[in-house]
Amino acid sequence: MRMIDIIEKKRDGSALTKQEIEFFIEGYTNGSIPDYQMSSLLMAIFFQNMTDEERANLTMAMVNSGETIDLSAIEGVKVDKHSTGGVGDTTTLVLGPLVAACGVPVAKMSGRGLGHTGGTIDKLEAIEGFHVELTSEQFVKQVNELKVAVIGQSGNLTPADKKLYALRDVTGTVNSIPLIASSIMSKKIAAGAGAIVLDVKTGDGAFMKTTEDARALATAMVRIGNNVGRKTMAIISDMSQPLGRAIGNSLEIVEAIDTLKGNGPDDLTELCLTLGSQMVVVGEKAETLEEAREMLLAVIEDGSALEIFKQFIKWQGGNEKIVDDVSLLPQAAFKFEVPASEDGFITFMEADEIGTAAMLLGAGRATKESEIDLAVGIVLNKKVGDAVSKGESLATIYSNREDVQDVMDKLTKFIDIEAAKKDAPPLIYEVITA
Amino acid sequence: MRMIDIIEKKRDGSALTKQEIEFFIEGYTNGSIPDYQMSSLLMAIFFQNMTDEERANLTMAMVNSGETIDLSAIEGVKVDKHSTGGVGDTTTLVLGPLVAACGVPVAKMSGRGLGHTGGTIDKLEAIEGFHVELTSEQFVKQVNELKVAVIGQSGNLTPADKKLYALRDVTGTVNSIPLIASSIMSKKIAAGAGAIVLDVKTGDGAFMKTTEDARALATAMVRIGNNVGRKTMAIISDMSQPLGRAIGNSLEIVEAIDTLKGNGPDDLTELCLTLGSQMVVVGEKAETLEEAREMLLAVIEDGSALEIFKQFIKWQGGNEKIVDDVSLLPQAAFKFEVPASEDGFITFMEADEIGTAAMLLGAGRATKESEIDLAVGIVLNKKVGDAVSKGESLATIYSNREDVQDVMDKLTKFIDIEAAKKDAPPLIYEVITA
Repeated sequence: MRMIDIIEKKRDGSALTKQEIEFFIEGYTNGSIPDYQMSSLLMAIFFQNMTDEERANLTMAMVNSGETIDLSAIEGVKVDKHSTGGVGDTTTLVLGPLVAACGVPVAKMSGRGLGHTGGTIDKLEAIEGFHVELTSEQFVKQVNELKVAVIGQSGNLTPADKKLYALRDVTGTVNSIPLIASSIMSKKIAAGAGAIVLDVKTGDGAFMKTTEDARALATAMVRIGNNVGRKTMAIISDMSQPLGRAIGNSLEIVEAIDTLKGNGPDDLTELCLTLGSQMVVVGEKAETLEEAREMLLAVIEDGSALEIFKQFIKWQGGNEKIVDDVSLLPQAAFKFEVPASEDGFITFMEADEIGTAAMLLGAGRATKESEIDLAVGIVLNKKVGDAVSKGESLATIYSNREDVQDVMDKLTKFIDIEAAKKDAPPLIYEVITA
Repeated sequence: MRMIDIIEKKRDGSALTKQEIEFFIEGYTNGSIPDYQMSSLLMAIFFQNMTDEERANLTMAMVNSGETIDLSAIEGVKVDKHSTGGVGDTTTLVLGPLVAACGVPVAKMSGRGLGHTGGTIDKLEAIEGFHVELTSEQFVKQVNELKVAVIGQSGNLTPADKKLYALRDVTGTVNSIPLIASSIMSKKIAAGAGAIVLDVKTGDGAFMKTTEDARALATAMVRIGNNVGRKTMAIISDMSQPLGRAIGNSLEIVEAIDTLKGNGPDDLTELCLTLGSQMVVVGEKAETLEEAREMLLAVIEDGSALEIFKQFIKWQGGNEKIVDDVSLLPQAAFKFEVPASEDGFITFMEADEIGTAAMLLGAGRATKESEIDLAVGIVLNKKVGDAVSKGESLATIYSNREDVQDVMDKLTKFIDIEAAKKDAPPLIYEVITA
């Protein structure tokens, strides 16, 4: 088999066989196929796309390019959730305890963040003592007994995807549905997921700017998952404004606790119930999404979801008292209000820019080497559609530096107030179950 | 300027500016742009094509990537001819003296061959004493006084094209009209051509298998030439069977002499008159193609073209007596006839395979290191459309080895004889003058 023939075959619009896909993924991973041939194939894929079968084969070839996590010692269907990323997305913190309380095992491998705020691990480390260094035995035991555990990323998972991603980034081949979909799905499957729920964001703050693009990606991933024997569902949700109200690590922990208590922001709560219902269904603990939603509402209502969150913190070394007293979390030294410049209605909050404002405070990493300040961030007091009076606070800035003029300016600039009321965009555009 | 932006711009279907094209050609030549970015851009060009303006700018950026030959000391419009390559193509040997006799200066830089037979220099070296090592002064003086000279390739011409070609070869991006056209044109222009005539071959023995592809390439090159100030014309000619009758270095010299005497094969003669007319017109020695053709017929008729060929050999150190006594050229030790297996008509002669048969005898180079045998080759006694009787000779093999069974088998296999007569395909499909 020769790489040049594979490039020309794809260039001319034919589907590649399983053997051909395995050949180039193996060869690229071990270095026998050079970057310049791979990038030319990637560009050909950009233009000629891939069939459902090719996408499934590409995903599994990447899974098999490195180590995989074996979760077979955990009972039940291990459900993983993936979000394509947005601003102020606290769902993972809420969903873990929530679906665990319904009996679905959540064996989560998580990472640190790059961008607006930290990753799930950074956020959890805002809790004093919390750690993710579990042995495999501890991890399995905790998931079997408590139904939820989070462990740091380890092992050489999907090296092909890592190498391909770096190449795509510099060769204009990032924005290709089959390549994005197989990249995401291969990582989830290598990490041991038996079923997958996907939250594909759309809007200005998301990678997929239009609902059409988001639908194409969501459908692609659901098909890959189901074609490789992992029950997969997805939703398309809005990311034109930040999700919930909190952006920042400690602040998002507080918001997660509120949500588990039934007092969270409407949009975050609704998103967690929608994603959580899919997780309970693919985790085979309910037959229908409606039945699953009733179960989730019940475990919020009776406090059992919150109790699991407490136990989860305790099992992983953290101070579970923060659940009842959030002042035990890292606190920022200064607090500033961002006043409305006029009377009117909020018509637009640019998610990306508000995320960047939080990063300027130190809530997220600009580069992999940056240190995160777990205490700082932004809480939005108004969201799109809300009425405001001149001087009323649009947002609260939590900071450890005294001068926040840059953050203040950014928030003022990217929160629009107009005389005519404009409704918020729908939170959930679509639910894709097959 | 960043290469990634240029890749994405072309990928998304926009035309690149002159500055962007110069940036990536310069960067790729000096190594600051890596192969993997270049191959991804090449594949994007394969799919998105280039405008006439982009093609002209790409051509000139490649010309300017290295040295260029300055022929300004030669009076008149320096006309160069280029053929996209075929089997038994003796036109260059005939056209040089022919158009020189009409007053058009032919300052030819030529190379050695790879494939079926040698290049122009190899063929000329079949003449005892002939050499192509001229100083610039000798070269200019000879062209000014005799109107024709051939010099070996020297200098670092179009290094960008050399590097790009090697990359295209392994990344599935050879077969792209804008890339092929700019590659050919940049080499001609860097070698000092003031006007260009192109012979684009089509058919089984050619790179462009269909007339449509050949037309697209010819039109692309004519437009580039005219857009960068080099008067350019082209023809599309048949290469489904070998051109003329001789395939092999000495044998082609003999055929060239016959043609200059007015006794050459019909197809070779007609092709030389057609291309020669274009050369005389773009060389500004005639107003119309008809007028130019009359001039060419006259210099064959009165012997002045043949006389220039003699002088040309003499000036470059060769034994000009070969023109009157071709037995002074290298002679093969053995001669074999290839008999027809049945009565009928020749319906097909596969140019490529017959060329390969000549290479098997040693007439051409399989690799750059191969030694050429100047004496050997094949002379076709029949061509498509001719009648044959069983046992009659289809071709004569000139060999320095006694066993030529392999060559005999190949010729028998790839010369088809059928009961029904089939006309030869047209020699010239199209003449493109602007």
